[in-house]
Amino acid sequence: MNPPDPGSLAMNTATLWESCNLRRAVDVLRRHAVRGIAPWRDRVGEVGVKEAARIIRDSGLVVTGLCRGGFFPAPDSKRRRAAIDDNLRAIDEAATLEAKCLVIIGGGLPQESRDLRGAREMVRDGLGEILDHARSSGVSLAIEPMHPMYCADRGCVNTLAQANDLCDELVGKGGTGIGVAVDVYHTWWDPQLAREIERAGEKRLLAFHICDWLVPTTDLLFDRGMMGDGVIDIPLIRSWMEAAGYRGMHEVEIFSKNNWWKRDPDEVVATCRLRHETRC
Amino acid sequence: MNPPDPGSLAMNTATLWESCNLRRAVDVLRRHAVRGIAPWRDRVGEVGVKEAARIIRDSGLVVTGLCRGGFFPAPDSKRRRAAIDDNLRAIDEAATLEAKCLVIIGGGLPQESRDLRGAREMVRDGLGEILDHARSSGVSLAIEPMHPMYCADRGCVNTLAQANDLCDELVGKGGTGIGVAVDVYHTWWDPQLAREIERAGEKRLLAFHICDWLVPTTDLLFDRGMMGDGVIDIPLIRSWMEAAGYRGMHEVEIFSKNNWWKRDPDEVVATCRLRHETRC
Repeated sequence: MNPPDPGSLAMNTATLWESCNLRRAVDVLRRHAVRGIAPWRDRVGEVGVKEAARIIRDSGLVVTGLCRGGFFPAPDSKRRRAAIDDNLRAIDEAATLEAKCLVIIGGGLPQESRDLRGAREMVRDGLGEILDHARSSGVSLAIEPMHPMYCADRGCVNTLAQANDLCDELVGKGGTGIGVAVDVYHTWWDPQLAREIERAGEKRLLAFHICDWLVPTTDLLFDRGMMGDGVIDIPLIRSWMEAAGYRGMHEVEIFSKNNWWKRDPDEVVATCRLRHETRC
Repeated sequence: MNPPDPGSLAMNTATLWESCNLRRAVDVLRRHAVRGIAPWRDRVGEVGVKEAARIIRDSGLVVTGLCRGGFFPAPDSKRRRAAIDDNLRAIDEAATLEAKCLVIIGGGLPQESRDLRGAREMVRDGLGEILDHARSSGVSLAIEPMHPMYCADRGCVNTLAQANDLCDELVGKGGTGIGVAVDVYHTWWDPQLAREIERAGEKRLLAFHICDWLVPTTDLLFDRGMMGDGVIDIPLIRSWMEAAGYRGMHEVEIFSKNNWWKRDPDEVVATCRLRHETRC
């Protein structure tokens, strides 16, 4: 494997969750010659989307994705409608930010529900409701399969096969406006991953998120590792992405409450830079 | 859905981990008219396998499975050989106990390894090494797919499709001596679960383990829930098992360090009895 192009490094603002607002994150990334950013809507909302777009545009950063839309399943039609409306706003924000995609997390089971199939149908139907607005706004929807341990409460789309099936169902094989985000943390265990990356192909592969799976993992949510500190063969998965035609950036997304979130953001980004070159 | 046959309730000794040695567990189960037990090798080893077999035989309990064999991946041939030898001993123990199956957990990545495909090949090869001995001993090997969150350090067989593929590869479509154990905790999220239970069919479906997925789940290992306290649609999965021809017992396996393991075993088993009848 060749090392990755250093210019392909991007940073999800979740990696700097506790240390940086949007403006500070942008400053840190520029200091380390990082060329891409994926902001969370929380960080965007703090300054307002127009100002966020201006800050990012002035910095020359590419917006690899806006985090995040989705969360469609809800116990009643009123709340399902509210979720759709929120996604329509997220699409507008993604358009203003000129984001490469809006990352879509399916959402989990509605409260008190055990109807997993029904929840998955709500995800499909919700995507169907927002697809036209996404297309007319020039925003691509990137369905991000979530690790099965998040199935109940965050994301009931749990494999890339499922995400690809959703794309097929919504827009057909060659359809546009919707694709997938591949995060190594959520998908590395999947025996069908190589095949499904190939199936997704260049057009549907909208984002590539990197971090690592630690052994042991001590928290379901906030114990993701820095690339190289865990067991994921990131270069292998990157090779599958590239063989399928992916030429986008490599976005670091590390939720790490007790380690990386506690550190100085310059140290975090410098480490990401080094590990990207040597371990990805 | 009809409620399950109360006579189909069985208990994995892990559910009574901190309160009961084998003898005490057997006494508790008899008091609550539970007719099946799945002992762990630790509990069997404490009294010796012959005495364990005598205790269980005298109680009239069916041994739904022995937990557990597998853990084949290792960093060198010496340790891979040691794993195989340990599995051969586990098969002998399962034969002495007249267990319906020996539960097989693949094992995770060898230390310092990121070669997931290689680990999965070691699982296949290890099973191949012990299959003849299992068959000649009259012991069925039950591959238990483990939740993907255990992929790195416990079990790299993570879907029922993978377990079925392993069976196909090792013994062909109609082959015997090897099958699968379906645990709702490990598999409930899997979009292909219904299809793969059907594919496994009566001959391969060797065990059915029940508990529940709690929301939130606060620990990756030790926070399983009592049936009915979580989000798994157990009656639905049972209906798939029964439609595929499964007529075996329903084995409760709850790892719950801060809740059920702390309780009086009579309360635990009485609750399992009630929840089995009303929530499974």
